[in-house]
Amino acid sequence: MREIAIIGVGQTPVGEHWDASLRMLAADAVRAALEDAGITEVDALYVGNAYGAPISSQSHLAPLIADHSGLNGIETFTIEAAEASGGAALRAGYLAVASGVVETAMVLGVEKSTDMIGTARTGARSVSLDADYEAVHGATLPALAALLMRRYMSEFGIELSAFENFTINAHANGGKNENAMYRNRIKPGSFAHAPMIADPVSLFDSAPDADGAAAVILTSAERAADLVPQPIRITGSGAASDTLALHDRDDLLTLKAVTLSTRKALTQAGIEREAIDLLELHDAFTILSVLALEAAGFAERGAGWKLADQIGLDGELPISTFGGLKSRGNPVGATGIYQAVEAVLQLRGQAGANQVADAKTAVIQSVGGIASTVITHVLQS
Amino acid sequence: MREIAIIGVGQTPVGEHWDASLRMLAADAVRAALEDAGITEVDALYVGNAYGAPISSQSHLAPLIADHSGLNGIETFTIEAAEASGGAALRAGYLAVASGVVETAMVLGVEKSTDMIGTARTGARSVSLDADYEAVHGATLPALAALLMRRYMSEFGIELSAFENFTINAHANGGKNENAMYRNRIKPGSFAHAPMIADPVSLFDSAPDADGAAAVILTSAERAADLVPQPIRITGSGAASDTLALHDRDDLLTLKAVTLSTRKALTQAGIEREAIDLLELHDAFTILSVLALEAAGFAERGAGWKLADQIGLDGELPISTFGGLKSRGNPVGATGIYQAVEAVLQLRGQAGANQVADAKTAVIQSVGGIASTVITHVLQS
Repeated sequence: MREIAIIGVGQTPVGEHWDASLRMLAADAVRAALEDAGITEVDALYVGNAYGAPISSQSHLAPLIADHSGLNGIETFTIEAAEASGGAALRAGYLAVASGVVETAMVLGVEKSTDMIGTARTGARSVSLDADYEAVHGATLPALAALLMRRYMSEFGIELSAFENFTINAHANGGKNENAMYRNRIKPGSFAHAPMIADPVSLFDSAPDADGAAAVILTSAERAADLVPQPIRITGSGAASDTLALHDRDDLLTLKAVTLSTRKALTQAGIEREAIDLLELHDAFTILSVLALEAAGFAERGAGWKLADQIGLDGELPISTFGGLKSRGNPVGATGIYQAVEAVLQLRGQAGANQVADAKTAVIQSVGGIASTVITHVLQS
Repeated sequence: MREIAIIGVGQTPVGEHWDASLRMLAADAVRAALEDAGITEVDALYVGNAYGAPISSQSHLAPLIADHSGLNGIETFTIEAAEASGGAALRAGYLAVASGVVETAMVLGVEKSTDMIGTARTGARSVSLDADYEAVHGATLPALAALLMRRYMSEFGIELSAFENFTINAHANGGKNENAMYRNRIKPGSFAHAPMIADPVSLFDSAPDADGAAAVILTSAERAADLVPQPIRITGSGAASDTLALHDRDDLLTLKAVTLSTRKALTQAGIEREAIDLLELHDAFTILSVLALEAAGFAERGAGWKLADQIGLDGELPISTFGGLKSRGNPVGATGIYQAVEAVLQLRGQAGANQVADAKTAVIQSVGGIASTVITHVLQS
């Protein structure tokens, strides 16, 4: 296979876009990415979206967006993997361009969560859980995360406060990101007293569903070098899966697909964990970040929470450098592409107040469900 | 890129499987394909599905199916392109294996239409139309097909009876296919008197929504030659798109994406139309077959219906050789993969009573919406 690089990125602000539909948000990101790359067309458009059908009553999004973005006629289809839809779309685009069949591909993630609100949206979001064994009993994603968090706290004798710095860090970084949804700071000590959503998962522990769209443009590294001054290479790409239902797992606290996916991506890139300058995790809930750090090999089992003091922009392992899902917001099917856009800005040195110094290697990880789908990419300058 | 071949196929009967869920149907097809290929594992599973979320309240299908099929852990995600989801999944699998990153991939299509019935399903199915400009006004896919058919009949002065042989042919072939949903014959003359669904589209003109799953296994042609006696090569693959809403098109009766997609696939395969031994069209409505024949270059504009007497198993251009969508049935997201399975059986000479003599080249075409997504593949023995 040939080497792949990202030559353009685009994003909309993340938030509640009551005045914009799915196609409008998407077209904004498409145009921004084309402008960033300095090109006017691509050969294919791969769309990551998770909830267009259940929330916006709109599937078959890919040709709709292609047409609305001025790309009518091109190859296009949608990729779905629940909350990992963005990462999976990036994987699909990576494979397409790697094949040599597709020369230049746009990978877009888009979600419009606010087309539905309240308990209706909670129900709509639950279609990505196991319908026959989880959703039917009223399980929701926050509720399942709460089960894991309680088990983790019990098994390792850990207090709620151990998790707070993940949220404090996310909001500290998101506060500097003009595209972030919630830019307020979280004060030390307030995490443990936040309103409960699903005990022990609180409001300060749960990423907000949001609207947004983000896009990256991929082409061969060879062609990229002719087109843009700072192509960012994708040097590793790994995808893995696990059961949907938690009760089907041997060990609740081991995110197997994180282990498999991370190993594949790092092995392909030929890098050790020490070489990673920043890590964009799927921090929908702090327990997911902690368990992912352990499963990905950055910490021993039961010790992931101890990394909380090393994740700042100037720490050993910066995480959620633009605010992560928690502060930047979680436009579900777009989130994996926001991670890619943010990593590219870091590796170009264009991250402004969110810049990680001398960032040369970034790892981004897109997670669907409770790590039922995990897609990991290594990006390098 | 390297050449790709199909080394295994599997399918469930198409019909109303009230006793089987999405995951059960899917696992049956996965197991059948593995057995057919004589292997026990694959590196990736790509799932085509259109209506899991709106009809079965189940998205995030790919890891669910992988796990239920004994493939827990592997790379997997879902591809959606409305009625072309199966063809799009085949395209995604083709690109993945062509890249060399994935050695062996299973491409599965699955749909469970009967999890919802009556007008509820009609509404759920409409999420793939333009939500803001078509579905909101009550448009359905049969209604849009009816608009095209009426316009076609008016513009070219054609009677309803001109379309009947497409249905008669489909049922004649489907009657010999033990996996077909409706195996009854349609008598000449009865087409024009069938109960209307959306005038002039009648019951005998409209393919039935169905349950079913089908799978194909892809690997490099080089590896395929070592594994199975009769690998079937994919020599052409083309994808294209058009507007979702009909009012956005310059010409209602030109299926632009069919033209683009067919041209790409035939050019890549390096074949002329005369070399095609059988053609599996998306015959959800006879007007779609007629317009596709014209857009794909088999007939002049307004003359596609004249091919109706050449489409039998022993005709110049056999169509719907196992019954097509109309008689075999339309398990929506699986239909594009049923086409692939049937083409492989034809090219292997294993089509039994449905065999097209000396079939060496097959073209299959998967269509989403009114040709908003079109994916065409050329398969050769």
